[in-house]
This record gives sequence, structure tokens and C-alpha cells, in this order.
Amino acid sequence: METPLSFRIFATDGRARTGVLETAHGSVPFPAFMPVGTRAAVKAVDPEEVRGSGASMVLGNTYHLMLRPGEEVIRRAGGLARFMGWHGPTLTDSGGFQAFSLGERVKISDQGVVFASHLDGTRIQLTPERAAEVQGAIGADIAMALDECAPGDADRDAVARAMVRTTAWAERQLAVARPAGQALFGIVQGGIHEDLRRAHIEELAGLPFDGLAVGGLSVGEPVPEMYRVLHAVAHLLPVKRPRYLMGVGTPADILEAVECGVDLFDCVLPTRNARNGQAFVRGGRINIKQARHSEDPLPLDPQCSCPCCSRFERRYLRHLFLAGEMLVSRLLTLHNLHHFGTLMAGIREAIAAGRLAGFKRDWLSPREDP
Amino acid sequence: METPLSFRIFATDGRARTGVLETAHGSVPFPAFMPVGTRAAVKAVDPEEVRGSGASMVLGNTYHLMLRPGEEVIRRAGGLARFMGWHGPTLTDSGGFQAFSLGERVKISDQGVVFASHLDGTRIQLTPERAAEVQGAIGADIAMALDECAPGDADRDAVARAMVRTTAWAERQLAVARPAGQALFGIVQGGIHEDLRRAHIEELAGLPFDGLAVGGLSVGEPVPEMYRVLHAVAHLLPVKRPRYLMGVGTPADILEAVECGVDLFDCVLPTRNARNGQAFVRGGRINIKQARHSEDPLPLDPQCSCPCCSRFERRYLRHLFLAGEMLVSRLLTLHNLHHFGTLMAGIREAIAAGRLAGFKRDWLSPREDP
Repeated sequence: METPLSFRIFATDGRARTGVLETAHGSVPFPAFMPVGTRAAVKAVDPEEVRGSGASMVLGNTYHLMLRPGEEVIRRAGGLARFMGWHGPTLTDSGGFQAFSLGERVKISDQGVVFASHLDGTRIQLTPERAAEVQGAIGADIAMALDECAPGDADRDAVARAMVRTTAWAERQLAVARPAGQALFGIVQGGIHEDLRRAHIEELAGLPFDGLAVGGLSVGEPVPEMYRVLHAVAHLLPVKRPRYLMGVGTPADILEAVECGVDLFDCVLPTRNARNGQAFVRGGRINIKQARHSEDPLPLDPQCSCPCCSRFERRYLRHLFLAGEMLVSRLLTLHNLHHFGTLMAGIREAIAAGRLAGFKRDWLSPREDP
Repeated sequence: METPLSFRIFATDGRARTGVLETAHGSVPFPAFMPVGTRAAVKAVDPEEVRGSGASMVLGNTYHLMLRPGEEVIRRAGGLARFMGWHGPTLTDSGGFQAFSLGERVKISDQGVVFASHLDGTRIQLTPERAAEVQGAIGADIAMALDECAPGDADRDAVARAMVRTTAWAERQLAVARPAGQALFGIVQGGIHEDLRRAHIEELAGLPFDGLAVGGLSVGEPVPEMYRVLHAVAHLLPVKRPRYLMGVGTPADILEAVECGVDLFDCVLPTRNARNGQAFVRGGRINIKQARHSEDPLPLDPQCSCPCCSRFERRYLRHLFLAGEMLVSRLLTLHNLHHFGTLMAGIREAIAAGRLAGFKRDWLSPREDP
């Protein structure tokens, strides 16, 4: 199988792997966390700050970008990376997940998804062929296959039907030519049913995808259920291709999934929570709104060396938050991305040194009142 | 007269002056433009970016800061500069102007101003003594005297009465001890009446202020009226002390006032307009919302080297604006502050070289469609 990616594993620790994924726009040391740049911007920060946090690849949302500014605007601007001034590796989802969750009057059939734009009600069809076309125009290094993700509370039959459709769509999308340098990942469904997951992995592993993702987790099921499924099946994903767990998660979730053999992650948690005043710190989280920080001279995390913690005190950040100054969204986002970047760098080092279990225990151990 | 400031004029060009104002927190080359950091933050940018734009002093609004976080929080944090991570010269207004314009149920008497906070309705009294106390706690390098600024459409008698009260308040505020290193500027009123302005300058020049400001301009009067008053009286302000024109203005206004002998300026124009999508460019302004920029690959100003223009294209900035991404507010603010910083640096050089008139003509001459 020819692939535009180079995927090399340097070391393993149990099922965990570390190495480097090479894309047309640069290298991604893994395990890696991708900040989410929904509308061609990681909210509240600029590309240099994203890079400075330790992130090497960002995710764009096809649903949002096809609606605004439109994929052809991005193509003519030289592709997503150049358009947004990131100049590094990018990945786009297929648009399906947001079409289901944000689109209005959604109708799904074997042909594809039809929905009304949440912006202006325009009726839009998303098929595997169209997902390939739009993502080809956006021009990320990694495109994702259109999949059907059954809701977290769907019954087994619905999950199984979504799986069958996802496989059929995968084959159709694979048949569409992609721009030079663009990889395509398939998405494994199967909900919390281990046998369905195994069967779907087997189906998709036989297709010429450049990597496989686990979809349909972290969609409302209890965390222990997600962990059970990951432990049961993540290591069954093809060993020699990247493994990507979509939409996950907390530092604890990431550490758990890395132990199961997952390489790539994305989540809005560090960026969205920052805008709500929540900062990830060693051993927990703090909320900057709380009155106890009103005269608190500490940085968000005394163990952190990010551009926020090295310059600003909690009492000032709390003032900015209460005053509604947008600067605080940026500073907390910077800090949270740095927290995740530091976590991932620590994970990579720990795997290389064969001490992932100890690293995980240390990272998650509660500190004195943070 | 002892003053905590050192004010040295290096060169003049007509009535225009250039030199350096030394404060307890650092140097201010003048003519200087002060970005407005209303609530201890220049909106949408961080202190390093403000510094990078060429600004050397920022302004904080006493009215906002006394309400939130409260002046004592700032005092205990080490003063305004340290609290906001700026570590450079700062100036605070007296709080009077915002008490009049933002306060509710405002009552003014010889004693002072009483108003209800726009945040929670708390009844607050601002007297010359209280203005001294609050600004002492906030700890800026330059504090301003409480003044009464008659509305732009006030009749001559009302303007004259506000002048008399302003002088009486000035004497009371001067009688209050200030923290070491804090200077106090008086504020000249008199509206658009040249004889009143002259009389008030004469009164205030006799008081031991460290500098004088021109208040009560740019409050709704036509621009030619403002220019007429500036040409008639700005040069009558004491030669050996800093001259500050409050709340002004556009690049054209600043250039005009510098020619009249003004040294210091502050205005929300570059920051507020940025958040509305307007960028100052050589020879005019552009609005990034306009459809003609939808696929425009130029930077905001092709002649600009700011961190926005060196990295981002108009088509991307327009996309961010339409998508409501806060990153665009920061990028346009950065650019506009850089535009004003570059203008002021050019003015200082031009005065030193004796070619201010030519510089002004060049800066303001319209370019081809920007």
C-alpha cells in the first residue's frame, strides 16, 4: 500500500508507542494532541502560540469551513495551513459529525447526509464523494472518511447498521482521487460493543486507509465504558498505521488511551474550558472565577513555564475574567494548550524510557489544594 | 517646583517639540500616544504586544478600576503597572469623565460628584480628595486632577462655571500628599472659547502641577473648531512642562496638535475601531468586513511590518471577522497600535530633523485605493 505518510515507531512501552509521523507539511511526534481549529483558527490564540505550546498538528472542521468561507476560498488561498498562517500539518474531519449535531432537518440515507446549514438554512448534501471533494479543496495533510456515528444511547442494532453504512461509505470515498500528499483515515464504529468493534476493525483494516480512527466514543457513554472498549480493541488496530481516538479528552483519558496503543488525539477541552475560566494544573483544575483567587498572587500553575504563568498572577486573571476582557481567554487557552503539550511531551519521553505507568501515576496524583 | 518627572526637550520644529519624559517606571519619548487600558488591560492584546507596537505608556481608567477590582486590590498587587504585567509608565485619569458619562443619577456640586455605579448601582462619591486617594492606591506614574468637563453643546456660562469649579478642585487635590514618584497633571477647560481657555491656562499654570492637559475637546464639537482652539492656545501651556491632549484622536488630529505644541495623546480609536473591523492604513482606513476583501491576498497595509501584516492576509482576517473569531480583534488591534506607534516615531524623527510639515503631508496624502 502506498501512503503519503511516513509512520515510524521508535519505542514501545506495553501497548503504548512513540515515534514520528511525517506529513507533507511537517513532522508530528506522537503520541500527539491536536488543538481544534474549528473555523481555521484555534480559538483565542495565534498559530505561533499554538506551535509554542508543543502542538505540531491542528484540526479543522470541514462542516464549518465548507459553509464559511467555503472550501474553494481556502483552496485558492493555498490550502488550510497556508490560509490560517499555521504552516504545519493539519487534519480535517469529514464534516459528518457536525452535520449530524449542528445541521438542521438532518436526513441520512445510504447515499449520504442531507442537512440545512445552521447559518442560513441552505440545504446541503454530504456524501462520501462530496466529503472527498471538499476535503481535497481544503487540502489538509490528513482527511477523514465520512462515517455514521450512532448516538451514545443507540441500541445495538442501530450501531450495527451505522457500521455497515460506514464501511460502504469508506469504500466509496477511497475510490475518489485525492490531491498529492493527502492521506485518508477510516473511522471504526461499533459503540460500546466489543464484538462489533472487532468486526469493524477487521473490515476497515483490509481497506487501503493510511490510518484508522476510533469514532463513536466520548459521545455520552460512561467513562469506564469507554476505557473498557479501548482496552479491549485499540491494540487490534493495524500496528503499522497511525491510530487516532477522535474527540478525546481529559489528561486521564489520554493517558489511558495511550496505554491502549492510541497515537493521536483531538479535543476542544483545553480551549473551550479556558474560555469558561477553567485552567488545567498539575493534579487538578482550578476555576479562575472563584473568589479565593481575588488576591491570589500565584500563577495559574506554579509548576508551569507557559507565557501566561511566567507573566500573570491569578488575581489579575480573575479580574480580567470578571471584567469580560478577552485577553483572559487567550491567556487561559495558552496555558491549557501548554499543559496538554507538556503532557504529551512527557508521555513520549516516558514511553521511550519504559516508565509510562509511573509517569501516568505522577501526572494524575492529586496535589495539595492547587 | 519639585517634580517626580524629568522632562527634557531635545528639538523643536515650529511649536512642535520632541524629547523624553522620565517617570518612575521608565522613559516616554514624546510626542507619545498612550493606548487605553480601561480596565487594566489594553483590549485584545497583551502588554508585550503593546510595547512592541512602539507605545511606552498606557492609560488606565480610574472610574472602572475603583469599581472593579477596587483600588486596594491594585495597591496590594504592587500598583497598576505590576498588576497588569506592563512594567512600564502608566497614567490614570481622575475618574470624573466616566463618572459623568457612565455613572447613573449623577449629581455634581462644589464638593464633588456623586453617582451610581453602572455595574451594581452602588452610590459613590468622587471628590478631589477621593480622586487623589484612589489614584494614589492605583499608583500610576501620572495622576490627573478631577475636573468638570462641560458637554460639547454647553453654553458659555456653563463652560465658565465648570472652569471655576475645576480650578477650585485642582487646588484641593494638590493639597493631598501623593505617593513617592507620582506626578499630578491639571486639566484646562474652557470649551471652544479662546478667551476662557487663555484665562484657565493662566490660572492653572500658576499651580504646582507637573504637567497640564487640555480637556473638553473632541467632545462633540466640529473638528475645525477643535483645531482653531488648539492653534490659539496650546502653545500658551507652560513650555517646560508636558502638554497632554486628552482623548485625541485620529492621525490627522494628532499631527495637527503636535504642530500646536502638544506632547501626549490617548484615544480608544485604534483599539475600538479594530474590534469593529476597521484598520488604519497609510493614506486611509479599510474595513475588513467588506466583500472586496473576501479573496484579497494583501496584508492589511502592504507598507506595514507589524505582526499581523507580516503573517496574515486580508482574506483570512475577513473570514475570522465574519466567523466571530476573537483572534481578529487582537490582530487588528495589533496592527492599529503599530500604525499609531509608527506614526509617533515618525513624528519624533521629523521634528528632530526639522521636517514635520513634510512628514505630515506625506502621512495624510491619500494613496491609490488602499
